[in-house]
Amino acid sequence: MGSMPSDWLSCPDIHWMQLALREAVAAMEIGEVPVGAVVVHGDRVVGRGHNQRELLKDPTAHAEILAITQAAASLGNWRLDDCRMYVTLEPCAMCAGAILQARIPQLIYGATDPKAGAVHSIFRLLSDARLNHRCEIRSGLMADACGEILSQFFEQLRLQRNNKRKE
Amino acid sequence: MGSMPSDWLSCPDIHWMQLALREAVAAMEIGEVPVGAVVVHGDRVVGRGHNQRELLKDPTAHAEILAITQAAASLGNWRLDDCRMYVTLEPCAMCAGAILQARIPQLIYGATDPKAGAVHSIFRLLSDARLNHRCEIRSGLMADACGEILSQFFEQLRLQRNNKRKE
Repeated sequence: MGSMPSDWLSCPDIHWMQLALREAVAAMEIGEVPVGAVVVHGDRVVGRGHNQRELLKDPTAHAEILAITQAAASLGNWRLDDCRMYVTLEPCAMCAGAILQARIPQLIYGATDPKAGAVHSIFRLLSDARLNHRCEIRSGLMADACGEILSQFFEQLRLQRNNKRKE
Repeated sequence: MGSMPSDWLSCPDIHWMQLALREAVAAMEIGEVPVGAVVVHGDRVVGRGHNQRELLKDPTAHAEILAITQAAASLGNWRLDDCRMYVTLEPCAMCAGAILQARIPQLIYGATDPKAGAVHSIFRLLSDARLNHRCEIRSGLMADACGEILSQFFEQLRLQRNNKRKE
């Protein structure tokens, strides 16, 4: 991850991923695991979200679910079949399933999630021939920045826990 | 499906599945694919939901997601690790993923979904040794009734479409 053919990258892709990363920062600022997502329709963001599981006390409040719900509300249609999603971390099973449900045809993600990723790592939910919907996937866009904010978050958490133990 | 050892069935299980089925009927009445779910904590329903994808124009508005969100709000905790879910149809990947996210330890479902079921049929997301969370699953409870309402719904839909074509 993090290295890819140079023709893979286009300026708009980086722009959208930067917006997703900004969402991840917003999650970090409220003490949530920093993952962010945007749904783009043409050249317009129609949905954005950052992980708010703790704040909303809702296990479904992942960045992708919130961004998809907002995009569908914004477009007045549950079918997001002319949208694409940018997300800082490889989606989990729930979020990959939501991408299928929303018929999103393009997913671009940053860092891989070797423990729970359901696109390439643990499951490959978006490239299964038995399902009707197929999704074009690109991974590794700004993977370093997307992964770094997660490492920082978990490092801080560890330090806080260690300090508490010492008190 | 539909046949199971008689000691599998307990009256409370049937009671809770009947409530899930009532939710499915509520979906049918508003023209939605009839799937219903309840989340039970001890002997109390803390979340219920029926498919409202069309009404809410939200691809994530499946019965299970709505029931989980309501249960978490009701208990003030995203962890539903002392709850169980009753749902009329085998969950899809999104909903099976949400069950994992919510740490629900027991799932009881009615009819199988050979096309999109992600518990036994297409994927086995809830019994994967690589994931931290494991879920005890029982299937086939009131499978006939749970499947019948779906068959009725799709039969009606077919008739309506055929009638429209003739007009």
